[in-house]
Amino acid sequence: MGNCMGIRNFCDRPKNTNVRWRLPAVCFVWQLSMIILFGVFDVHVMIFVGFGFLMTFLKRYSFGAVGFNFLIAAFGIQWALLMQGWFHSLDYTDGKIKIGVENLINADFCVAGCLIAYGAVLGKVSPVQLLVMTLFGITLFAVEEYIILNVLHAKDAGGSMVIHTFGAYYGLSISWVLYRPNLDKSKHLNGSVYQSDVFAMIGTLFLWMFWPSFNSAIADHGDGQHRAAINTYLALASTVLTTVAISSLFEKTGKLDMVHIQNSTLAGGVAVGTAAEFMLSPYGSLIVGFFCGIISTMGYIHFSPFLEEKLKIQDTCGIHNLHAMPGVIGGIVGAISAAAATNTVYGDLGLENTFDFTGPFAKRVPTIQGGYQAAGLCVALCFAIGGGIFVGLVLKLPIWGDPADENCFDDEIYWEVPEDEESVPPIVAYNNHMIPNKHADIEQ
Amino acid sequence: MGNCMGIRNFCDRPKNTNVRWRLPAVCFVWQLSMIILFGVFDVHVMIFVGFGFLMTFLKRYSFGAVGFNFLIAAFGIQWALLMQGWFHSLDYTDGKIKIGVENLINADFCVAGCLIAYGAVLGKVSPVQLLVMTLFGITLFAVEEYIILNVLHAKDAGGSMVIHTFGAYYGLSISWVLYRPNLDKSKHLNGSVYQSDVFAMIGTLFLWMFWPSFNSAIADHGDGQHRAAINTYLALASTVLTTVAISSLFEKTGKLDMVHIQNSTLAGGVAVGTAAEFMLSPYGSLIVGFFCGIISTMGYIHFSPFLEEKLKIQDTCGIHNLHAMPGVIGGIVGAISAAAATNTVYGDLGLENTFDFTGPFAKRVPTIQGGYQAAGLCVALCFAIGGGIFVGLVLKLPIWGDPADENCFDDEIYWEVPEDEESVPPIVAYNNHMIPNKHADIEQ
Amino acid sequence: MGNCMGIRNFCDRPKNTNVRWRLPAVCFVWQLSMIILFGVFDVHVMIFVGFGFLMTFLKRYSFGAVGFNFLIAAFGIQWALLMQGWFHSLDYTDGKIKIGVENLINADFCVAGCLIAYGAVLGKVSPVQLLVMTLFGITLFAVEEYIILNVLHAKDAGGSMVIHTFGAYYGLSISWVLYRPNLDKSKHLNGSVYQSDVFAMIGTLFLWMFWPSFNSAIADHGDGQHRAAINTYLALASTVLTTVAISSLFEKTGKLDMVHIQNSTLAGGVAVGTAAEFMLSPYGSLIVGFFCGIISTMGYIHFSPFLEEKLKIQDTCGIHNLHAMPGVIGGIVGAISAAAATNTVYGDLGLENTFDFTGPFAKRVPTIQGGYQAAGLCVALCFAIGGGIFVGLVLKLPIWGDPADENCFDDEIYWEVPEDEESVPPIVAYNNHMIPNKHADIEQ
Repeated sequence: MGNCMGIRNFCDRPKNTNVRWRLPAVCFVWQLSMIILFGVFDVHVMIFVGFGFLMTFLKRYSFGAVGFNFLIAAFGIQWALLMQGWFHSLDYTDGKIKIGVENLINADFCVAGCLIAYGAVLGKVSPVQLLVMTLFGITLFAVEEYIILNVLHAKDAGGSMVIHTFGAYYGLSISWVLYRPNLDKSKHLNGSVYQSDVFAMIGTLFLWMFWPSFNSAIADHGDGQHRAAINTYLALASTVLTTVAISSLFEKTGKLDMVHIQNSTLAGGVAVGTAAEFMLSPYGSLIVGFFCGIISTMGYIHFSPFLEEKLKIQDTCGIHNLHAMPGVIGGIVGAISAAAATNTVYGDLGLENTFDFTGPFAKRVPTIQGGYQAAGLCVALCFAIGGGIFVGLVLKLPIWGDPADENCFDDEIYWEVPEDEESVPPIVAYNNHMIPNKHADIEQ
Repeated sequence: MGNCMGIRNFCDRPKNTNVRWRLPAVCFVWQLSMIILFGVFDVHVMIFVGFGFLMTFLKRYSFGAVGFNFLIAAFGIQWALLMQGWFHSLDYTDGKIKIGVENLINADFCVAGCLIAYGAVLGKVSPVQLLVMTLFGITLFAVEEYIILNVLHAKDAGGSMVIHTFGAYYGLSISWVLYRPNLDKSKHLNGSVYQSDVFAMIGTLFLWMFWPSFNSAIADHGDGQHRAAINTYLALASTVLTTVAISSLFEKTGKLDMVHIQNSTLAGGVAVGTAAEFMLSPYGSLIVGFFCGIISTMGYIHFSPFLEEKLKIQDTCGIHNLHAMPGVIGGIVGAISAAAATNTVYGDLGLENTFDFTGPFAKRVPTIQGGYQAAGLCVALCFAIGGGIFVGLVLKLPIWGDPADENCFDDEIYWEVPEDEESVPPIVAYNNHMIPNKHADIEQ
Repeated sequence: MGNCMGIRNFCDRPKNTNVRWRLPAVCFVWQLSMIILFGVFDVHVMIFVGFGFLMTFLKRYSFGAVGFNFLIAAFGIQWALLMQGWFHSLDYTDGKIKIGVENLINADFCVAGCLIAYGAVLGKVSPVQLLVMTLFGITLFAVEEYIILNVLHAKDAGGSMVIHTFGAYYGLSISWVLYRPNLDKSKHLNGSVYQSDVFAMIGTLFLWMFWPSFNSAIADHGDGQHRAAINTYLALASTVLTTVAISSLFEKTGKLDMVHIQNSTLAGGVAVGTAAEFMLSPYGSLIVGFFCGIISTMGYIHFSPFLEEKLKIQDTCGIHNLHAMPGVIGGIVGAISAAAATNTVYGDLGLENTFDFTGPFAKRVPTIQGGYQAAGLCVALCFAIGGGIFVGLVLKLPIWGDPADENCFDDEIYWEVPEDEESVPPIVAYNNHMIPNKHADIEQ
């Protein structure tokens, strides 16, 4: 408020001109930081509530889903702040990393890749393995992201390549190395119950709602950001409908499968990640969402069993259908839209602004940019698969306390699980006298 | 951004004065769009999490509640973007609809009406019927909204008339046409269980918290918007207390009923919808909230049974108590507050700004405006009841796959429901050996 | 808007130049109000969803947890608006309280103290007692806050002293007066079940995510606010890791305890409350979070049993570990950081801006400020313990309808609890014929 008072005194010129610049500048800077600040919280909700609850669908692994997700994210953001600090915001004069609000959002993005990877190994690894996986994952992510965004100068606002393709193939590669031939022993726990499916929908909805925020958080501010939000919104909306359609089409008697509704409805947001800030047009977004809903749902029905039986990749949450395939599609759509960009569509300065054709990249043209986008996709895949195999081998060492095959998908192993409601039937408790629990006796 | 460039070319002056206009202009435009952008997400949370979880209270219809809510909303926003585009943002030069961030929030508003209507028929219709209901509902909404807001020039920031009255009577009319005399056959499923009531509270709280955001999202920016948020906040707070009071007063032994807490606590937000941006004063808001808490809770206790037995309207969620009665009250409160507005209270330009007495409406005075507000309420009712009866008749055709009376309120019909926890008691699973499930045998 | 008009009249120049001041001024004012407005919603989410769901962990007290939390908050914000109005925003010219959006956020802060206190007595008091407790709690809070922030001019952006220390000791004192020697009678209900623990995690995560928003909401806008958000974020992240570490270290076989994950992970946010807007540095925040995770988790393991057995304080949610100890630590950290503040670290005007060394406090120096911070902590403790004992004695009167020892932690007493799923096994319901419920018979 000190500034406002300043205005009153300043009004009788020479002094005057100062405020003219300071005031808008403060507005401007604050606005920018507010955009980022609220972006942080929206993205925060996706990371902690979205990913955490999405994985609670298993009947007896909700503690592990939401609790280990919390642990990975809390560790990951700290490590990401350091890693990204070394790459991006190291102040060489005093050797210190400066942390601003922007860094927090980038840390959340970093962590997203590792949480995606967690989906593939959910219920089959120990929390120690998860921390190791996160340590390497964040490190690989920081390098890969630096190469794709800074060296290749590819654009990837929503992270189709950098986050989803990388995270998914990183997790799938680890899962491939850690293949458990006798996972059938815990088959009875590898499924949902009614309430756990409802909990998972909390995750789905918070991811779905804030996805436009995610894809637009680091987009070019202003027009690009709005475009990213709108394109994502439309792609997501159309994915929901095709997911429902395909789910009903392939299930007996046309019933819907909750697994598809929980996951495939998000595929459009993944696939539109790279191209969201480009001039994809509402029409293009709807088409991308349309096909991704089909591909992702078909993936759950036909491709996941194939992956497990033939390729020996056990993918608990089906991240291949939600992140891997849509991520690759997103990278390709991004490369094509970039290559096809023209001055006519983007306007005079639009191309320069959208693709940042400035500085050392001032001479780039859209077709070349398309090539670099494709190269970015390859880099993401190489880091993911190479890194994943390496980390998988590290995790195979018999020192990390991973569960036996028959104890997979069971919170009992790593959590103090409360005595179950079934064994203390409320009907007994209500009468306020403790009778021996015959019910439990009968069962044993 | 085109405008900004225009300014630059237009103002041909020394370099540095240019920024003076561009910088504040950018700030201004961005701020506006940020307000809208965050409004979108808040309202988004209400539509997808709020409405979706509010309806999960039934013991075996949580998938249908949250899943079909998701489907309706995802389809509805797309159709609403088109419908509202034709009415409002069609560019006649190239025949294309321009979609901006503002359109997204309007689409969410559009959809709200259909989700309210869903509450009346929850558990008794097929997803195909819901899509048909949404198609017609959005269409009717767009026309009705155009007449009320643009032709009659009535104000309705929070949509008491346009959204709640319309949505509720649309749903109730459909439910009346689709009356099922033998619904008793699925009576055992038409109720809640402990966990489903807790899930429903997620919906209640997200609706309650963001309601001020909803009512102020499209209010006159600046003062009007703040007023709308504060008035709604106060009305909601006072509704909670009267709801608790009446619920306790009319239940045996003074216990509270979750149905009332889940629903009637929101009635104040509905009733203050139209008048929220007017100078209702904190005092006025508290009074509106006070009475709506009473009326809505009494409605659940006395009026809902009457509606079902005498008027043959089966209203699963009690939308008559939460949306219909408070919506009509809101319309009336709005008409009275508008008619009673004076220059003394609103200040010099306040009346013009609040009621938009400009252009063709420059000669309107508050008393006339009050009349038009009342006319708006009638239009909402006519469209709702007329449209509802028509759509109800369409939905009566025997081609939509609706459930039999004994299968109502049961997710089994449209969803692959996971095997229940009870039939695989965790105590068996924990021992890691599969013994025959005697417990289930005994029951059968 | 009054100001803008003032400016217009004041600066008597060609039309054009006026906008130069109005436009940035509007931007500025709107930006400020937006920051506050969105702060309100974030904090709102913490109050209603965060605190409400955090307390749903008990197997049969979820209705009471989320429902009475809702009631307390809805009543509390109204009473707080009045109380704070009398202290801060009373307009002496017309005797009216002006309510702006800022007041709403302050009301939420006020209520937080009472909700913390509710955690100590959860399940052991009637809703009438809760309303009485809230009435006195808000009143005490308003006086205590006025003394600490305005008279002593201590800083407490995140409320370590004003909110957490006060709220926790207020609740613990009440619980001490209301000590129930035979609480063992309802021991079977004083624990969680699987699903209730997952519900509680919703509360934990929403509190955790928006805590940076809470601590920075009323911090000095601009730099101070960013600092508060970042410091809180880092403290919280490091608390999660130490909580997991200590939980695993002290449980048999290294398992994790959900109680710790639900609560102690938040302790860092409490402890960094006062010092969040100071130059604590990322390093300092991480250290504060590190130690609070340890202390809080150790508190649950060792100190809570001691409190109950020796000091006769029954603390249902363990608020001593989550709010009391970390709150006091926060106050001490705040006093030390304030006393140690120097011009070198804060920059030229940084000290003045951060500590508001203006007006009557213009001559304060950091060391003196440190003393006043410590004095503030003492004031919070005195009001909490003195007020708590008084209110506890009032609540001991046998007129408030509190539950018998054997009915504690049981929703049955104050709520219409739906017939339980166990007694209507879905397997029966699915067959669509109602057979006598043999299962229940066997149990009785």
